Order: sequence, then structure tokens, then C-alpha cells
Amino acid sequence: MSQIYNRVALIGLGLIASSMFWAIKRAGLAGEVTGYARGQATRDTARRIGLCDRVCDSAAEAVKDADLVVLCVPVGAMEQVARDIAPGLKPGATVSDVGSVKRAVIEAVAPHLPDDVYFVPAHPLAGTEHSGPESGFAELFDDRWCILVPVPDTPDAPVAQLRALWEGMGAYVDEMEADHHDLVLAVTSHAPHLIAYTMVGVADDLRRVTDSEVIKYSAAGFRDFTRIAASDPTMWRDVFLNNKEATLEILGRFTEELFALQRAIRTGDGEHLHDYFTRTRAIRRGIIQAGQDTDAPDFGRKKTTQ
Amino acid sequence: MSQIYNRVALIGLGLIASSMFWAIKRAGLAGEVTGYARGQATRDTARRIGLCDRVCDSAAEAVKDADLVVLCVPVGAMEQVARDIAPGLKPGATVSDVGSVKRAVIEAVAPHLPDDVYFVPAHPLAGTEHSGPESGFAELFDDRWCILVPVPDTPDAPVAQLRALWEGMGAYVDEMEADHHDLVLAVTSHAPHLIAYTMVGVADDLRRVTDSEVIKYSAAGFRDFTRIAASDPTMWRDVFLNNKEATLEILGRFTEELFALQRAIRTGDGEHLHDYFTRTRAIRRGIIQAGQDTDAPDFGRKKTTQ
Ligand SMILES: NC(=O)c1ccc[n+]([C@@H]2O[C@H](COP(=O)([O-])OP(=O)(O)OC[C@H]3O[C@@H](n4cnc5c(N)ncnc54)[C@H](OP(=O)(O)O)[C@@H]3O)[C@@H](O)[C@H]2O)c1
Ligand SMILES: NC(=O)c1ccc[n+]([C@@H]2O[C@H](COP(=O)([O-])OP(=O)(O)OC[C@H]3O[C@@H](n4cnc5c(N)ncnc54)[C@H](OP(=O)(O)O)[C@@H]3O)[C@@H](O)[C@H]2O)c1
Repeated sequence: MSQIYNRVALIGLGLIASSMFWAIKRAGLAGEVTGYARGQATRDTARRIGLCDRVCDSAAEAVKDADLVVLCVPVGAMEQVARDIAPGLKPGATVSDVGSVKRAVIEAVAPHLPDDVYFVPAHPLAGTEHSGPESGFAELFDDRWCILVPVPDTPDAPVAQLRALWEGMGAYVDEMEADHHDLVLAVTSHAPHLIAYTMVGVADDLRRVTDSEVIKYSAAGFRDFTRIAASDPTMWRDVFLNNKEATLEILGRFTEELFALQRAIRTGDGEHLHDYFTRTRAIRRGIIQAGQDTDAPDFGRKKTTQ
Repeated sequence: MSQIYNRVALIGLGLIASSMFWAIKRAGLAGEVTGYARGQATRDTARRIGLCDRVCDSAAEAVKDADLVVLCVPVGAMEQVARDIAPGLKPGATVSDVGSVKRAVIEAVAPHLPDDVYFVPAHPLAGTEHSGPESGFAELFDDRWCILVPVPDTPDAPVAQLRALWEGMGAYVDEMEADHHDLVLAVTSHAPHLIAYTMVGVADDLRRVTDSEVIKYSAAGFRDFTRIAASDPTMWRDVFLNNKEATLEILGRFTEELFALQRAIRTGDGEHLHDYFTRTRAIRRGIIQAGQDTDAPDFGRKKTTQ
């Protein structure tokens, strides 16, 4: 793979930024990658593990002369970071981000950027429940989707260049309009996360079932919920606060359907339940065919991954 | 491992029964294992793949002279099967089951059994989303829990013997009272399954998001829901209809909590969200420490399992 940007700056050095760094290095996609994180401890860790060619002590220093600047901080921190870096951006540079929400990030970031840079928002649909500079790995984006959400009037060239970078990091790339992105993600990610958090909270709260019982007997479905619900609280708080409308819409529909199924249980309507459960199987088959999961049974993953 | 029963009969030849057979063979826990399934096609498949030492064409024939008979059919089918086998049971035999619900199974089965057999209900907390005679494998129960739910006045010996069988198949064994079992399972399995089914149904229903979008972008949380929601419709219909009370209680609490979180999103109460999400992380840590899952990030399981 050949070099796509001369210099890339990563602002924020957590799971996503560190995975980007290793993926960029794996394929030689950039001449130099600089990095900046807010906390001294994070910067120290980054230097210790060789994350970024150069870790800088200010965002302004990191973005100096960068051809691509990627904001890899929680959605709620994007605006402040945009303000901080704006004065130091090189004319003609591309600014992007990896935030899990797009409409709110565009509204928070775009107004602060100078006219002579291109803003190409992006969202890689890949993650784990871990965070921080040491959680990243080069393969995170392999065979996962990255959605680009170009703002109106962006020329083709910077979009194509960013697409090439994500493809070089192993991802498939799609383009989408911001509101549609936020709705799709509310369905496939944001609502499921809130639901998993809720169910885990209920289990924790139930006095008649001890925590150790919940933990011992988690294999039967609950385990997957706890993994989802172990994700970073700050990141997810920001996601929900910044994708309010779509998330609440999906949750509204969810409770409607849940009530209908509860009624079927209460009244003993086995046919309704059976029909509903049969319909949901088809989606699963689609996901396996699309290569986003394997058909191998999951019977408690062993310590072999990574 | 030494032989624990002379002859074991498995009634129903799906995921659980076939896994039991391979696990019993792996450790040499029984002299002979007979099997029976309702459908001719299932019996043919079982014979073809060598599932059971002897596949019988009637339940009566399969249980003849058996020291242990295990009912491995959906919960709603237990009563009929109990009626069918009762006349042919050997005096002193143990009858057990693997149903995911215990109170209702006890009420359905116990009245039909002769006085000279021991009934020791059981529930292995292990499964996959697959079913049928070809889906089983010897390792399914390794390091998983099996809960025994002895009915009052059962002598110690048949319980201890069944415990030894499950331990020989790789499981840890606990004993529990039926109602408590049903409540614990409502929390760790039944409610999570219904919730996953519901969320997948909502996604499928949403006209503004296409199925192919849902499928392509499923990696971010939704994927785990679809796996859970791909489980057998008949089995799960029976579980909900037979664990009505506990499931509805947990779902009631779940909706309460979900409403509180929805309100926090609507009013922008980030602190409430952050606190809630922080609390749920602890449970996850407990599960990893208890060895019921791995800490390795799940970034789309590759086709390496099994
Ligand atoms: N994790 C996922 O599954 C996933 C998937 C796709 C997209 N995303 C998005 O990617 C972005 C980063 O997520 P991540 O998982 O990489 O997070 P992470 O591992 O928690 O790292 C976040 C980074 O942002 C920095 N940061 C946090 N708050 C900040 C603030 N107020 N001002 C400046 N810097 C701040 C942190 O610096 P310190 O370490 O110094 O505090 C840290 O370096 C988020 O927008 C998230 O929505 C996440
Ligand atoms: N799957 C799990 O994750 C899991 C985990 C723990 C416990 N369990 C419990 O284990 C039991 C069996 O589940 P499984 O996953 O092994 O199911 P499965 O793979 O679907 O197999 C069910 C077996 O029961 C037979 N059967 C179905 N309906 C019947 C009826 N009305 N009368 C007689 N036989 C009937 C089927 O025969 P045919 O093939 O001939 O139709 C088949 O052999 C259920 O009670 C379930 O609650 C399941």
C-alpha cells in the first residue's frame, strides 16, 4: 500500500486513535503520524508503547503542517478540540473525526474551522468494550464499515483521499447523509447499548438474586449484554445526549413492541410469540452471509482472540 | 472417568441431547445410551451420524431398562413425553430433564411418574443458537453450570449420581429451589432473550432503515442481539409461556429503568447516564473473573471456533 497523506495528526489517543495508528503503520499510509492527548499520563503511555511517531504536548503542535487531522475524542469534547486546533491548521488540510454521532458533531465542529480546510466527518463501525491508548490494534477496522458523511459542497478529492486511507486501514467505506447515519446507528448501536445497560442495571438491582448468581449463570444470554454494557461511560453518555431524537424514537418503538410481546406472554398467545421469533431469525442469516459474524456457535469465547 | 449409569436414555435428540451423548462418550460415563426423537427424519439423521448407541422407534423402547432417562424436548412437550414413558420405566430409575424452566416442568411431569422412580429435574446453563441432532458437541457443558432442582423428599443417592454425571460431562453443579431457579433464569436468560428478539424485530420493521443497512452495520452492538434472537422459536415460546410470572416481573422492572434512562436522555441529565453506565461495568468484571467470558475484545469473531 502506498502513502496517502504526508502527515496525519490524531487528537485523542484512545481505542480508535491507537488502532488507526497501528493500521496506518501496517500499510504505510502516512509519512508521519503525530498525536496528542489531553492527559499527561496518556501521552506518557503513548510514548512508552511507541504509539505515534511523535507525541506532542499541545494540540496546536500536533496539527502543525498536518495534511489530515482526525478528532478521536468523545463526541461531547469535539467542539472544544475544534476551537483549540483551528488557528494552527494548514490551509488545504482535511479535518475528520471518528465520532459515533454525526449531525451533532458537524454542528459542533464546522463553525470553528477556517474556510481553507476541508471537513470530512467519518465514523468507523468498529470498536470493543475497552478504551485508552493501550487497547488499540491494527486489525480493528479489517472488514468493518467506515461511514463518511461529507458536508455539502465538499470537493471530491479530499473525500476520495480519506476513503483511500480507511480502505488502506482495512475497512469498507460507505457515504451517507448525517441524519440518516444517526438513525441507522440508533438502530444498530445506540438503542441496543442503552437496552443492554438497562438490563444489566436491573440485574444488579434485584435484591432476591445475588450478584454472584447473576455472574455465575450469565452464559445464557446475559453475558453478551454485560460486554456491551462495559463500554466507556463517558463515550456513551455523549452519544445519547448527542443523538437524542433518533435514539428516543427507536426506544419508543422498542417499548411498543415489548409491550405487545409482554401481553402475548400474559395472555398465553403462543402463536404471536412463535411468529415473532421466527421472523427475527432471517436477519441473523443475513448478517452471517454478509460476513459480519460467524455461524460457529458461541459457547463462551475462549482466551484465543487477539 | 468411570461409568456412572449402566444405561441412559435420551428422549428428544436436539442440541442438548446430542451434546450430552458426545460428552457422555468422551468420558465413558454410561454403558449404553439409547435415544428417541419424535420425527423419523431426526432419528434417521441420528443413526447416520452415530448419535446414540441405539436409536429407538418409540420412547417406550428407549426407556426400557434405562437407569437414567433424560427428557430433552421443549418445555411444552414434557408432559406428553412423561405420559408416554411412564408405563415403561424401570423401578428405581432416575428421570431427569434439561428444560430451561423448572416449576412448570415439575408440575407437568411429576404427577405422571410412577412412585418407584426418582425425579431429579436439571437445567444445564449452556446452549447455542443452533438446534437439532447435528448441532451438538462434547464441549458444550465444559466449565458451564448445571442446576439441579431436586423435588422434596428425594433421597440423596440419585441426586449425587446425577451430579456425578454432569460433572463428568464437564459442568459445575449447583442445587437450587425451583422458584428461585426460575427467577434467576428470568434475569440472566429469559428477559435478555425477549429483549433481544424485540430489538431485532424493531430493526426489521423500520421502513426508513433498510434491512441491508441493518445487516451491514450490525457490528456495533446489534450483532450480539441477532445471535441471541436466532434461537429456536419453539423452545423460546415454551420458555416464556412457562415462566410467565418471573419473566413479566423482570420485564416490568426493565421498562421502569428504561423509562428513567429515556427521561435522562430527554432532559440532558448526563450525570444520571454516566453514573448508571459506571455501575454496570462492575458486573462485567465479575463475569470475567468468574471465567464465564474472556476479556479479549470481541471484534467480530472469526471462523475459528469449533
Ligand atoms: N469505542 C468504540 O467502540 C467506538 C467506535 C467507533 C467510534 N467511536 C468514537 O471514537 C471516539 C473516541 O472513542 P475511543 O473509544 O477511542 O475513546 P477512548 O479510548 O476513551 O479515548 C478517548 C480519548 O479522548 C481524550 N479525551 C477525552 N475527553 C477529552 C476532552 N474533554 N478533551 C480532550 N480530549 C479528551 C482522552 O484523553 P485522555 O486519555 O488524556 O483523557 C483519550 O485520549 C468517540 O467519539 C467515540 O464516539 C468509538
Ligand atoms: N438450546 C439451548 O440453548 C438450551 C439450553 C439449556 C436447556 N435447553 C432446554 O433443552 C430442551 C431441548 O432443547 P434443544 O435446544 O436441545 O432443542 P432442539 O435442538 O430443538 O431439539 C428438540 C428435540 O425435541 C423433540 N421434540 C420437539 N417437540 C416435541 C414434541 N412435541 N414431542 C416430542 N418431542 C419433541 C425434537 O424432535 P424432532 O427433531 O423429531 O422434532 C428434537 O429432537 C428444551 O427444554 C430447552 O428448554 C435448551
